[in-house]
Order: sequence, then C-alpha cells, then structure tokens
Amino acid sequence: MPKVTFQPADLAGDVESGTTILSAAESLSVGITAPCGGRGRCGRCLVQVEGDCGEPTDDEVRTVSPEDLAAGYRLACEAPVLGDLTVTVPLDSQTNGTKILSEDSWRHTELSPNVRQRVLDLEAPSLEDQRSDCQRVADQIGVACESLAPDLAVLKKLPAALRAEDFAVKAVTIGSRLARVLPVSTPDRCLGAAVDVGTTTVVLHLVDLETGERIGTASALNPQARYGHDVISRIEHASSYAGGINDLQGAIVGLINDLLLRAAAEASASANDVFEVTVVGNTAMHHMVLGLDPANLALAPYVPVISRAVEVAASQIGLAINPAGNVYSLPVIAGFVGADTVAVLLVSQLTSRKEPTLALDIGTNGEVMLWSGERLLVTSCAAGPAFEGGEISHGVRAASGAIEHVTLTNGDLEISTINADQPNGICGSGIFDVMAAVLSSGAADSMGRLSADGDGLEPGIAGRLRGKGSEREFVIVPGSRGADGRDIVFTQKDLREVQLAKGAVRAAVELLCIEAGIETSDLSEVLLAGAFGNYIDPRSALRIGLLPPVGLAKIRGIGNAAGAGALASLISTQERQTAEELAERAEHIELMARLDFQMVYADSMIFPDSDDVK
Amino acid sequence: MPKVTFQPADLAGDVESGTTILSAAESLSVGITAPCGGRGRCGRCLVQVEGDCGEPTDDEVRTVSPEDLAAGYRLACEAPVLGDLTVTVPLDSQTNGTKILSEDSWRHTELSPNVRQRVLDLEAPSLEDQRSDCQRVADQIGVACESLAPDLAVLKKLPAALRAEDFAVKAVTIGSRLARVLPVSTPDRCLGAAVDVGTTTVVLHLVDLETGERIGTASALNPQARYGHDVISRIEHASSYAGGINDLQGAIVGLINDLLLRAAAEASASANDVFEVTVVGNTAMHHMVLGLDPANLALAPYVPVISRAVEVAASQIGLAINPAGNVYSLPVIAGFVGADTVAVLLVSQLTSRKEPTLALDIGTNGEVMLWSGERLLVTSCAAGPAFEGGEISHGVRAASGAIEHVTLTNGDLEISTINADQPNGICGSGIFDVMAAVLSSGAADSMGRLSADGDGLEPGIAGRLRGKGSEREFVIVPGSRGADGRDIVFTQKDLREVQLAKGAVRAAVELLCIEAGIETSDLSEVLLAGAFGNYIDPRSALRIGLLPPVGLAKIRGIGNAAGAGALASLISTQERQTAEELAERAEHIELMARLDFQMVYADSMIFPDSDDVK
Repeated sequence: MPKVTFQPADLAGDVESGTTILSAAESLSVGITAPCGGRGRCGRCLVQVEGDCGEPTDDEVRTVSPEDLAAGYRLACEAPVLGDLTVTVPLDSQTNGTKILSEDSWRHTELSPNVRQRVLDLEAPSLEDQRSDCQRVADQIGVACESLAPDLAVLKKLPAALRAEDFAVKAVTIGSRLARVLPVSTPDRCLGAAVDVGTTTVVLHLVDLETGERIGTASALNPQARYGHDVISRIEHASSYAGGINDLQGAIVGLINDLLLRAAAEASASANDVFEVTVVGNTAMHHMVLGLDPANLALAPYVPVISRAVEVAASQIGLAINPAGNVYSLPVIAGFVGADTVAVLLVSQLTSRKEPTLALDIGTNGEVMLWSGERLLVTSCAAGPAFEGGEISHGVRAASGAIEHVTLTNGDLEISTINADQPNGICGSGIFDVMAAVLSSGAADSMGRLSADGDGLEPGIAGRLRGKGSEREFVIVPGSRGADGRDIVFTQKDLREVQLAKGAVRAAVELLCIEAGIETSDLSEVLLAGAFGNYIDPRSALRIGLLPPVGLAKIRGIGNAAGAGALASLISTQERQTAEELAERAEHIELMARLDFQMVYADSMIFPDSDDVK
Repeated sequence: MPKVTFQPADLAGDVESGTTILSAAESLSVGITAPCGGRGRCGRCLVQVEGDCGEPTDDEVRTVSPEDLAAGYRLACEAPVLGDLTVTVPLDSQTNGTKILSEDSWRHTELSPNVRQRVLDLEAPSLEDQRSDCQRVADQIGVACESLAPDLAVLKKLPAALRAEDFAVKAVTIGSRLARVLPVSTPDRCLGAAVDVGTTTVVLHLVDLETGERIGTASALNPQARYGHDVISRIEHASSYAGGINDLQGAIVGLINDLLLRAAAEASASANDVFEVTVVGNTAMHHMVLGLDPANLALAPYVPVISRAVEVAASQIGLAINPAGNVYSLPVIAGFVGADTVAVLLVSQLTSRKEPTLALDIGTNGEVMLWSGERLLVTSCAAGPAFEGGEISHGVRAASGAIEHVTLTNGDLEISTINADQPNGICGSGIFDVMAAVLSSGAADSMGRLSADGDGLEPGIAGRLRGKGSEREFVIVPGSRGADGRDIVFTQKDLREVQLAKGAVRAAVELLCIEAGIETSDLSEVLLAGAFGNYIDPRSALRIGLLPPVGLAKIRGIGNAAGAGALASLISTQERQTAEELAERAEHIELMARLDFQMVYADSMIFPDSDDVK
C-alpha cells in the first residue's frame, strides 16, 4: 500500500491505492477543510502534492488555476493516492485538526464492540472445583455471574455446549451478557448492523464485529411513506386508531429485516449471526422503531416517551436477528431533536473543540447545535419543506433533470441539472442557488420583494421577471428549453416560503448564540450535516443569510452523521457512551418559550444586502 | 390485644389473644428453647407465668410436674395468651436470644419488598419542562431512567396512563423497574407469592405486599412424582430424551399456577395483581422450576448450571402472574446443597452467632451446616430414604395409623400412632424412636447387631426378638394388635439401613468440625430444620448418635425454613441480599474428596454405648 506523509503535521500512514487524499487525511486525523463535503465543488481543499496522484479531474480543472495545477496543487477530495506521496496542506486548507467521523472513516474508530466473540478454554469441573457452569464461564470472561446470564435461554443450552468438546467453546457476549455458546469447531460469524432510519431513506450497514469490516450495505425508501410523507402525518396515522403505531412499526421493522437479508446475502452471511443492531433516527423514527406512542411528539410541549438510549432484546421489536440479539437505539434529546442530532454531536466531536462551533442539520425540521466552549445548546426549528423542494411551485426531488445548481455568470443564470438531463424542476440545492442568484442579481431586495420593474438589472435578469404584485415571478428556464415545454419559475410565493424557512433557521442560530452569550463572529467553524451539507453550495447559504456571515472558509460539510453514528456506536462502546453523555449534556432550548423569539425571528427574515460571502 | 412482658429480657408487646407464649416470644425476639420445635413433647420451654393463660393442656400435664404447675410454670409452646401476662423465662429455657424466622414469624421481618406500589403525583410537562415521560417518572421515584424501563412493554402504555388522570398515577415497581402504571382511581392490588418447592410437597403463600399480610395459602403434592418419587429418578427422566426437562418444568410450574389461582381465590384476588414469585427448593427443584438441565447434578462432580440467585421474567418459565412480573429463585450452593439450605442459613441467622453452631436438614439427602464463628461450612450426605420410612420393611409415610413415637417404659415399648389409629407401619419419627429403644433396651449393641439370644434383657424386650442371623428381627407390634393382622417388625436389615443413614449424617457433622478445627463439644446449639426438626424426638436422635452428644438442651427445632425463607425474601430485599451473601460465603465441603472420609464414616456408624443423652 502506498504511504502518504502529511506536512506540516508530519503524520504518515499507509492507505489503499485509489483512496482520495482527503480520506487519507481523515484516517490520520489530519484536518483539511472541505466545506462542500468533499464533492469537488468548492475548491477549498487545495493541497500541494509530490508523488503520483494521476491526472487532474474535470472538477480540478474547473476549480484550480492552471498555474496552481502546474505547481502541484490538487483538490484533496478528488486526487487519488496512486503511489507514495508527500502532501503539504496550506494554512488556508487546514482545519483546526479535529477529526470528523464519516461513513467512510468510521472504521478508524478503535474496535471495541459491545458484541464480542471469544474462544474459552475452560478447566473441566472436578470434586475440587465444583463451580457452576455459569460461574465457570463468568470467571473466565471476567464478569459477574448475574450479568452474564440475566435470562434463561442461554443457560438452557450451556451444559451441553460446554461438554460437547470438553469445555472448549466459543462464546458471544453482548455487553457482559452471554448470548451464544458453541463448540469451538462450529463454523459461525459474529455480526452487527447499523441502521440510519431516515424519514425518507433507510440505510443498513452489515459489519463483521470480529474484524470491524463492513461486509454489506443495503438501502431503500422508508415504506412508512404510505402513511404520509412527513413525520407529522405519520404521527397522526399512529394516533388515529388504537393499533396505529403497529402499522408504522411493522413497516419500518419489516424493511430493516429485508435490508438485513439483502446485506447478509451480499456477504454470504446469516441473519442468525447478527447479534446487535444499532439504530439512529429522529425522535419520531426512534419511537416508531421501538413501537412507542409518538402522539405527544406532535403536541406541545412535545414530550418523548423516553429520551435515553434504549437497549432491548431485538425480538421485542420483531427484528429477525439471533434470538439472543439486542437492538440499541441511540438517545434522543427532545421531541424534535433526535438521535440523528446526537450522531452529529458524536461524529463532529463538537465538545472536544476549544472554540465556539456551530453545527446544522437542515431538512423539513432544522436542528441547530452550538458548542460555546462550555455549554452545548441544541434546538430545532420548523424549516418546512421548502429547502427540500416542497411547497415550491416547481420544486422536485433530487432526481435526473432536477436543477441542482445555478450560478450568476456574465449577467445571467447558468444552470446545471442532475445527469445534465433536460431540466424538469428545482431540487433543494438548486433552490438555495436560485434564491442567492435572485438576491445577487438585484431581482429581489433584502425584504424579499421581487423587483417590480427590473430597473437597473442586467437585461438577462430583467427579462426573467414577469407578472404583477403577488403574482410576480422569476423565470428560471423558459418552456422552450424545459423537459415538458412548461416554464420553470420561482414565484414571489416561493420566495416567501424560502424566506420563512431561512428565517426560522437563522433565528435558531441567533437565539442559541444569545443564550450562550457569544457573537456569531466568535464562531470558529460551521459544520453542515447530512444531505444539506453534502449538496448545497455554502456560498448560497451565506448569500441568503441562512448562515451567519462567518465567511466560506469556516464552513465544512461533515457527511452523513446519522449513518456514521450508528456505525460508530456499533463497533465502539466508547463512542456509544460518548453519545449518551452528549445527549445528557446537551441543553435543549425551546425557542418558542423565549420572550425574544418573535423579534429575532422577524430580523432573521431579512436577507443580507451584501454580496460578499468571501 | 393482650400485652405480654418477658423477663428478665424486659421486652413487651401486644399479641392476638390465643397466641402461644412461644410465638409471642418469637415476635419480640425473646429466645426460648424448644428442641421439639414447639410441639409439646420435650418439656424444655418451661416458663413461669403471671396472668391468664387457661388450663394446662394434656401435654403440659404429661411433661410438667404438679409442683411446677402449681408454681405457675407452663410450656411456652402450649400455653395461650388470654390476658395481659408477665412471663419469666428461666435460665434453662433461654436460648442465646437469636431470633429464628419461622413461617409464623416471617411477618415480623421489616417490610421492604422488592415489589412496591406507590402513588405518583407528577408535574405535567410544559415548554419549560420537556422531560420525557420515562424521565419524569424515574425522577419522582428516584431511580435512573435506564433501570426504570429496561424493556418496552410498560413504555408503550406509559403516555396514555400518565395522561388519563392528569399525571396522577399508581406505579408498581419491581426493584427499580417499572412494571405497571395505572390511573390513581383504578382499583387494584399489589401481591406476591412465596413458594416452597419440596420434592414431595409444594406450598404457596400469597402476600399483600402493601401491608405485608399473608392473604392466602395453598399446598399440594409435587406432581413430578409421576416421573419418580426421588430426585434422582426425576433427573434421569429429564435426561432421558431431548425435551425431558420440559415435562418436569411443566408439571411443577403448572402446579404453582394452580396454587396461585387457589390462593388468589381464597383472597378474592387476581393472579394478574401478583408481580413477584419467590421460589425455594433443593438444587434439582431449582433447576426444574427454571427449566435448566439437571443432568449434571446427578453425575460427579455434581455441577449446577447456575448457583447464584436467578431473577427473570415470570413469563420465561410460564408462570401466569402479571406479564411484567418476575420470578426470584434463591441461590443454591452446590449440586446437593440447594436454596432450601440457604433458607436454613437465612432464617437461623447462623452467621450472626458468636459461638459455633450446627444446623441440619435431614431427608433422603442430608444437609449439614456448621458455623464455626468464622467460617460457614456446608455439605451434603446421602442419608437415603430410611429416615423417611423408605427401604424399611414396615416403613410408611406419616399418615393416620403410622407409629410416630415409641418410648421405652417399664421395660417394654409404649407406642403412639397418628390419630391414635390402629398401627399400620412406622413413619420417620417412629423409626428414630424404635432405633433408640432397640439400643437402650439392649436389643442391639453399639455395632448394630440385634441380640442373638436376648440374654439379660427385660422379658418384654427379649420376647420381641426372633429369627436367626441376618433374618433376626424385633417385633414392634404383633399382628394381633396391628391394623391388618400382620406383625410390624424392625429387621436386622432395617437396622443396617438406619445405621448407614445415621453414619452418613454423623460423618458429615464430624468432618465439618474437623475442617473447622473445632470439637463437637464446642457447639453452642444444634438447629434442626424442616420436618426433621418438627417431628423427631431429639432424645432419639442423640441416643442413636445421629447428633453428637451435645445434650438435649442445645437442640432446637427451627421449623420450615424453606417456606420462611421464601416469605422473607418476598417481603424484604434485605433478607434477599443476606441470602445471596450467605450463599456466597458458604464453603461447600465435598466429603468424598477428603482423604479422611472413609475412616470417619466407619467410626460414625458405631452407635453410642451410653444411654445418657443429656
């Protein structure tokens, strides 16, 4: 394997050939800034390389100047390690060195899973040593007898299993509990699964807990969609009749069982060898997976049934893994601040930072986390579906033909679509860009009003405005160039939806800063989690004032924290404990209960005048 | 209620009218010696009384001299408290003051059950207090959230239960686990059951855990008898085919469920209000109730599957109590030293004594316990069925017509039968007396040989001997006076059976004393548990040398320890913890593993020459 040495950190290690320099850096805890989440968009992860890392990619040619390329500068997120390299990270590209766990880097977590398989070579009993079978095993493992065998199932099989091969056995423990005993010669595996239960998508990773290797992955849309696309509709279904929760639990657990079988098939493994499933989701998903009544999550004061981590027999929720297996659900913090937010806290290692840092995870519900250096504040805000293309005239899901990026170039819009297909609507990331372009071009003012007459605008922009008053709209793609002959427009009403959403998120940020007694200018970094961090252009987020004006350099995508958190807590009891401590430590701030909420919210709706996002 | 004052202890208390003085003394922890177990036989519990305690009973007239009766002396075990009394306990009748828990005195244990019902008047949640439902309850009870709700069943019902009457609820906890939440207005009870699972008889006590009162009792023969009368036959059945253990578990659990329903009916209660069942039995019964493979209990080196206390969901073993209920099985010590022995240690409070004390529980299997003042030694010995009338020519169970007592009076036998019915055989207590009479009369010598010619014996005795050599026998009741016309005899072979049994027990006593480095003369008291202690005449036990020659004054019956232990651990977590500590502390001595076993056993077979048992 090629060796990579990072300077000035002077850290070196071997990596698989083809690994990106950014991944190699993460594996060595070398901090390289990547505001776009390592997607080749922002050009901020520039590093200087000596050694073989192939030809520059299209993204590199687009974002790196020919002079820099000639001087050996490359994008860390794009350039692959093909031979031994020395990589110098310029000051501009360095982060403060804090490592972010990602779904790709989770495996660098030290392997200390809750589930362990070990070979026990026990002394056979004698008249001089009449310890019970259970005590004999407990002594060997080094746990108390009562924690080894809190139930009877494994005890029923223990005497025969111990005596089948003269007290040489393989034991699987979950925590300190004995889950399986087999003669040493029995072929078997010891597996776990990590599940990211999103409202829309569910992803399952199958992991070999003896090696820490991921051996299979499967994902699918959340079938609860049949009871409503958004969380509130599903909660309403659950509460609409006595067994309603069972529909939602059955749907999600059934899917997890399907994903388990698919991932196991991929790895030629058996679900019976899976002993633990870790689950991360928002509070509603958390309740629904566990079969707990979610009704009060949607009613003030939004109280969960339980917020701490839940570890129960997998059979209690109908998971078809080993009958002795467990399900571990990461803790939640509040009705609208779930285990997915705890996962962000965990993988971002927010509280290990010295300086104030903000983290956001924005979807229909926005979660905002602020580490002040002393206090860990979290809150949620109802961003609504606008940022995901919902409630927007021509909003669409991120699929082929969706407008995903829009830039203002030479006095007009430049548009790119997914798969470079004919445009059929605007998806989330495109909506941020459109809003930013409308503001930067002067087509709308800081109060969010579309220009009534187009005076003083570039002709390419002015020509896109049409209609009167509240019917005013901005044409993004005329029908003649669209997929279905219709104009794709951004209306005054669409703009108001985006404005309300950005106001809600920004107000949450401001109020947390007020609560913590810091200025937004004190923030050392702003971390963007999940799809939001992966896909939106941070420049647009700054331009529309969704984020405070911290400058582009301080913005960093941290990838899919939920999946990474589920994986980390599967393979490391230390990470699991940290997650529980973070959930305990987090102070949930209920914004609506604050007297200053209305005023800050009103201020936060105003768009920035300045076009300077750095 | 009449008031009783004991002197010289100067302890006083109110008791129900009709309570015996001995029970009143136990309730106040006043020690009165009662070697015969308070059955009016031994005349050793003599006390001097001022006040109304009725006319002397037949037993008192028989055992107390007319002069003593005239001076106000009564038997504490017979005389009832009918009015205010002052009772002086003579030095001869005082024990060292250690209280013995009995099935009658268990309720004087401080009420601190593992199962508790309490009313919670919770603050309703608000935007300022968004604690989860589970946390809210946990905080009020004062336990950690994770120990309150280790499983999901109660969490599923919690939100609705809390909101039914505006957060005023009744909560049942088992340990720190929430088992039930109901609106305050729901009528209900909070009950527990204590079960003494004997090889022959099963007794269940139903207890109201809010008051500590016993509200019902039911008992029946152990239906496992259909798989064998003795433990070994049942273990063989369990091991004879794959599901064999299920037959034995099904039989005993089925019976416990029947007894629960009968006891509940008696108390107009519902089994659904029963939240905990405590179980005490020997190690084989312990395994069979829990459904654990007992095979290795009967095979050297006699290893249990588990020896510590087991607390599991009652549903795991099929007990039909509240679905959230638990079963708690007291710990065992070794393959032949079970929870019944732990119960003896518990109720006798052996380790709280300053001086060496011996305790015995003798049946087919004999358990011997020795507290040296520092070490707690326990062992078991195979007494065989002789002491219970098994393997004896005319041995019978203790039923109407069984010869239960035999004394040597005026040179001949005096016989008493159960219900004074015509004699039909000899039951356990009678066998001890016959053996003692045979020795005291000279009909057998200290080697256990029946006199070959009757020379020098009283004519009434000599005339009972007949037959030659190994066919020699001693006629107890000639057929003309028996129930069915047959002679009731005690043969040379019967005598050898008794001799082997007594030798095994006595050897165990001697070997424990050797192990502890004490002489049997150092023993301050010898406690006899269970049926053995209740029914046999301690004089006979001393005469045949089953017990070391400590003198009658040091022998004391402690009643049914198994039932008392099950009750004590049901109503007191402190007693439960003490039981677990005693089981941990007990050193199990495997006699067969000792080099001196054979020699001590041979010595122990010899009967005492002396007729002086004091």
